[in-house]
Amino acid sequence: MIRELRKMEKVNVIKVGGAVVEDAQALQAFLKLFSAVEGYKILVHGGGRSATAMAARLGIETKMLDGRRITDEAMLEVVTMVYGGLVNKNIVARMQAEGLNAVGLTGADMDSIRSDKRPSTPIDYGFAGDVRKVNGKALHTLLTAGFVPVMAPLTHDGNGQLLNTNADTIAAEVAKGLVPFYDVTLTFCFEKKGVLANPADEESVIPRIDRARYEALVADGTLSGGMLPKFHNAFAALDAGVSRVVITSATNLHAGTLIMKNEQ
Amino acid sequence: MIRELRKMEKVNVIKVGGAVVEDAQALQAFLKLFSAVEGYKILVHGGGRSATAMAARLGIETKMLDGRRITDEAMLEVVTMVYGGLVNKNIVARMQAEGLNAVGLTGADMDSIRSDKRPSTPIDYGFAGDVRKVNGKALHTLLTAGFVPVMAPLTHDGNGQLLNTNADTIAAEVAKGLVPFYDVTLTFCFEKKGVLANPADEESVIPRIDRARYEALVADGTLSGGMLPKFHNAFAALDAGVSRVVITSATNLHAGTLIMKNEQ
Repeated sequence: MIRELRKMEKVNVIKVGGAVVEDAQALQAFLKLFSAVEGYKILVHGGGRSATAMAARLGIETKMLDGRRITDEAMLEVVTMVYGGLVNKNIVARMQAEGLNAVGLTGADMDSIRSDKRPSTPIDYGFAGDVRKVNGKALHTLLTAGFVPVMAPLTHDGNGQLLNTNADTIAAEVAKGLVPFYDVTLTFCFEKKGVLANPADEESVIPRIDRARYEALVADGTLSGGMLPKFHNAFAALDAGVSRVVITSATNLHAGTLIMKNEQ
Repeated sequence: MIRELRKMEKVNVIKVGGAVVEDAQALQAFLKLFSAVEGYKILVHGGGRSATAMAARLGIETKMLDGRRITDEAMLEVVTMVYGGLVNKNIVARMQAEGLNAVGLTGADMDSIRSDKRPSTPIDYGFAGDVRKVNGKALHTLLTAGFVPVMAPLTHDGNGQLLNTNADTIAAEVAKGLVPFYDVTLTFCFEKKGVLANPADEESVIPRIDRARYEALVADGTLSGGMLPKFHNAFAALDAGVSRVVITSATNLHAGTLIMKNEQ
């Protein structure tokens, strides 16, 4: 109840995937929209396509299972280079040109996200990290000082090991970690305008989905595949105190589908 | 005179080269020493050997001129990945394991180092940056908040372009940029115990060199090649108010050669 009585400042945690950040023109267009978002904000980015392309150039085969990358030592080197270096620093430099004082982070930087190496059974994903703890205080310090954190999908275990961590998960965990400090909105950008009632109709965006509606949409087959972990992350974030979760297009941050705990 | 009357806190800016940070054992040994350095500290690292090795794996030829890398677009991609990602994030994760709350930065992060692309005449070094301005205030904010900045040899031009910048230069410029905030010591680590009077005798470390002695050592041939730009950086830092410049081994931060403006 104390939280509701305090007038909390707002923060937007916005996740964009590889298709946006790996294409110079799409990135530029997105950063114009991101610049216009008022108040505190954090960008979380992917970069899987670039990692796969760089791995191929190095003769390293990319193995995926249920949409998740299997990260052996050679692949960890690739994602560390590509996510933490190439993609992250390119975004940071572009943001600086837009007048945003960006600072690129992996979970190791400022101990911002600590994770545990995923158990190797039943499936060995290699150097994949499941988030244990987000350092909301460090992010709060950066935001308060006027910086815009740009987070790569890498974490660490606190013992010197970097770990590969899904960007949607990073975004949801960062949003949850900021709940003690802010009124948090979490936005997942993807290639559609929102969650579509009819996949053949790009305009059939469902404006609001609560848990009951979600279960109905899964049951009738409207939602499947890669959308399910997105919703899993979304509901976990809402349960942990995140105020709003939005699924929208990277070309319109003020529309899309609003995910709610319960229809209000 | 005001500076001398104030009791300024101390900061150590320590630069290590590729041979230290690219070897897991050498890095571990160095980080033990670095952890023991009291007070505020910043690490600046190189990574040229790793960049050259990664470039070779990608079929990209490394071209050097007077010890400086020629950075075309393909090589800029390599150094961004290797310096900003692979080397920097590995150091940061290892430091976290040593209990140091490290944060890895390129010059684009927090707009910490802005540079100008080097003119393409007489020699076109490509995407090479000459430092224009260090954001001492941002580094001061991080240090005061308890973080240890770990700086990669990359800068940006403020218009979205990353630039490759020599790590010794980064260290000297960062040291200069911190003069308004701290009593600054700048330490260059390299493979010898210090500046040697006799290259065949590893123990013949010259304890102190001022400008007159430097000129004599250049004249008699004791100093040449890669040492000259190091001294150029050192004297420029001293002229700009840095208190002490030390050239020593990465295995002993409390010895080596002390470079002074004038014998005192």
